Amino acid sequence: MRAAVITVGDEILIGQVVNTNASYLSSVLSSIGIPVEKVITVGDDSRAILNEFRSTHKKYDVTIVTGGLGPTHDDITKTCISKFFRSKLVEDSGTLRKIKQIFRRRRMPMPKVNYEQALIPDIAKVVPNKVGTAPGILIDRDKKTFCALPGVPYEMKQMCKDFLLPYLRKKYSARKKIIKHKTLHTIGISESLLYETIGDISRITGNHNNAVVKLAFLPSNYETRLRISVDAKNERDADNAIKSAERKLMKRAGRFIYSRDESSIAETVGKLLGKTSQTISAAESCTGGLLASKITDVPGSSDYFLEGVITYSNSSKNKLLGVKKTTLLKYGAVSNQTAIEMAKGIRRASGSDIGISTTGIAGPSGGTKSKPVGLVWIGYSDKNISFAKDFIFTKQRLRNKEIMSKMALEIVRRQLTINN
Amino acid sequence: MRAAVITVGDEILIGQVVNTNASYLSSVLSSIGIPVEKVITVGDDSRAILNEFRSTHKKYDVTIVTGGLGPTHDDITKTCISKFFRSKLVEDSGTLRKIKQIFRRRRMPMPKVNYEQALIPDIAKVVPNKVGTAPGILIDRDKKTFCALPGVPYEMKQMCKDFLLPYLRKKYSARKKIIKHKTLHTIGISESLLYETIGDISRITGNHNNAVVKLAFLPSNYETRLRISVDAKNERDADNAIKSAERKLMKRAGRFIYSRDESSIAETVGKLLGKTSQTISAAESCTGGLLASKITDVPGSSDYFLEGVITYSNSSKNKLLGVKKTTLLKYGAVSNQTAIEMAKGIRRASGSDIGISTTGIAGPSGGTKSKPVGLVWIGYSDKNISFAKDFIFTKQRLRNKEIMSKMALEIVRRQLTINN
Repeated sequence: MRAAVITVGDEILIGQVVNTNASYLSSVLSSIGIPVEKVITVGDDSRAILNEFRSTHKKYDVTIVTGGLGPTHDDITKTCISKFFRSKLVEDSGTLRKIKQIFRRRRMPMPKVNYEQALIPDIAKVVPNKVGTAPGILIDRDKKTFCALPGVPYEMKQMCKDFLLPYLRKKYSARKKIIKHKTLHTIGISESLLYETIGDISRITGNHNNAVVKLAFLPSNYETRLRISVDAKNERDADNAIKSAERKLMKRAGRFIYSRDESSIAETVGKLLGKTSQTISAAESCTGGLLASKITDVPGSSDYFLEGVITYSNSSKNKLLGVKKTTLLKYGAVSNQTAIEMAKGIRRASGSDIGISTTGIAGPSGGTKSKPVGLVWIGYSDKNISFAKDFIFTKQRLRNKEIMSKMALEIVRRQLTINN
Repeated sequence: MRAAVITVGDEILIGQVVNTNASYLSSVLSSIGIPVEKVITVGDDSRAILNEFRSTHKKYDVTIVTGGLGPTHDDITKTCISKFFRSKLVEDSGTLRKIKQIFRRRRMPMPKVNYEQALIPDIAKVVPNKVGTAPGILIDRDKKTFCALPGVPYEMKQMCKDFLLPYLRKKYSARKKIIKHKTLHTIGISESLLYETIGDISRITGNHNNAVVKLAFLPSNYETRLRISVDAKNERDADNAIKSAERKLMKRAGRFIYSRDESSIAETVGKLLGKTSQTISAAESCTGGLLASKITDVPGSSDYFLEGVITYSNSSKNKLLGVKKTTLLKYGAVSNQTAIEMAKGIRRASGSDIGISTTGIAGPSGGTKSKPVGLVWIGYSDKNISFAKDFIFTKQRLRNKEIMSKMALEIVRRQLTINN
């Protein structure tokens, strides 16, 4: 059982588009026990594409191709498939009907080039595309699976979920080896400090109860993920090995772990707020709306998120949040005192249980020696306690906005976890 | 002149991490005339890594490796390099000093494992890392370049800019062929409609004045980028061919193009506001802070962005923006009338020249037959005109927030472009 992924597109080879399709496919194929051993990228060039079709279809059991199925002249994957399998392109009436429907829903006229998208190699199954116009193509030959999907990520993903994954799972159900992963997410602790906190990892990794356990540290932007990987002969051994490793990690570093089920920090906070029937509001300066945006990324967040304000100027901090002019004068906008008054102010103005605030220097300019770029004060207020904490992050604006917003949520999480 | 990129890490092969490093390296190497012909991903396995080192160092002039230089047990790239080049690891005092400094700035104790990061193969040059602890490694042998950089994207990028790219540009300056790209960005027009609007593309592509011109359509989430690529013998021919293709595209579809210099829509709007000395404020419902966050992603946006409010509930729309209760009752929160009153309200409350608002159904639930998930009303108000426009986007919350925010900015852009 060997799989390869071929991603087609000059835009990937020249680096204009990030290859999220390869990582998505690797992830979902790995999750159903079909490890991807190779990812190849080729440009929009029929000779390069045909070469790659030949070598991978020969060597691998499963070949998944993405990209090049769109309606314009640079989309040549379908023609290549038709050549490679010596198969004619014929119109698929069901597909044509769906394409027409899409244009109706969008209230747009249907251009002529979209008619060609309904053509399918005559030996292929159609992989239905519920969210876009390009159908996928599946060819089952010589005990091998060859499948081409559109390059637009959300279309490709939807088609995997609806069709390709159930199909492969069924076809290769006789597979024996089980590979499972579980990831624990931490924030606000450095990779090396987390490594030291966990201590001797050889007591977690290696052979345990019929399974081989691996542990990886994955740092990115002040978050470190701990990935447990196990390799076992059956589901039960794999699950037990994961559970055992997870228990050990939770015992050693549990207080830093905000998620064990791939929830984002905003989802974790949302669940805690829901569980305790509390509401939250946000007052932002340096994060400029990103904190509220993260909170509202969670479906159903309207149940607990009441209000957000973005107060870039001193006057709006005073007008909308009641931060005292004397506080701003004496301590400055980026200060413990202002952060606390902002958190108290938004809690009062919105009537929410919790107020959270950010005030800092996102950069790239605006820093001073005592208040450098990357400094942020995060304020927290509820009916029992109001406080602020400071952190110094990076010199890059977007990274600062990102990690400052997440750290604000982490402070809410820690507070909700202590209190409950 | 052939280059290959090897990305190391189980996290990529199992799809946990998106391979942004490969796309960044492809992009910057392509921009200095060194096309990446192959991108390979291998896991944290020394045999697989060594195999890949052997075959690529043999076949390619330039091999760039990313990942596996961190401080933990699963970081084995450096050991592999030392084995492959039969070179000893020795302590680099300058690197050790920098690592110590980083921990001082972060006000954190320095764990022991970080000392090992200062070890470097004795035949290598150190690639300095200004923003993280892992140094890069550069080995120049057999007229070939082999360079390993950390996998953390912002560290890797910074080290490319500071060191690797100037180094490669100088080393391979005798190259003759010039490849250039230019991308025009559109929003709010479908790929196929844009294709039709542009018409006969063979009048743009093909051989023109000593250059070969290619045109690609790159759709993603209601944006379509038009990428012009040219291949010429010298800089001047390449530049002229790009300019000529760009002129033709601007003539045919200029009104849809918001950026010709890789500016984001928020940057474009920021420049237009700066040029006309106008200020803006945002009132958001369904975009939940993302619109303000996009505006404030731009350095210096505090010059023109005055205030943002996120009003999820009817009562906060009324309280903070003065949207009439009768309007909310009669037309609902997601309506032409509410969107206009929100835009007017935030303009009045903040004293800004322009008010922009969003109210819609981000999803995944909450839709009705007449107001489906994905429906958004975007309101605009300035001293001369107030109006709202509706769009129907997708059924996915995060995609909706993203495209609704961008479309709001596009409406501001079109308004600023008409008026000036």
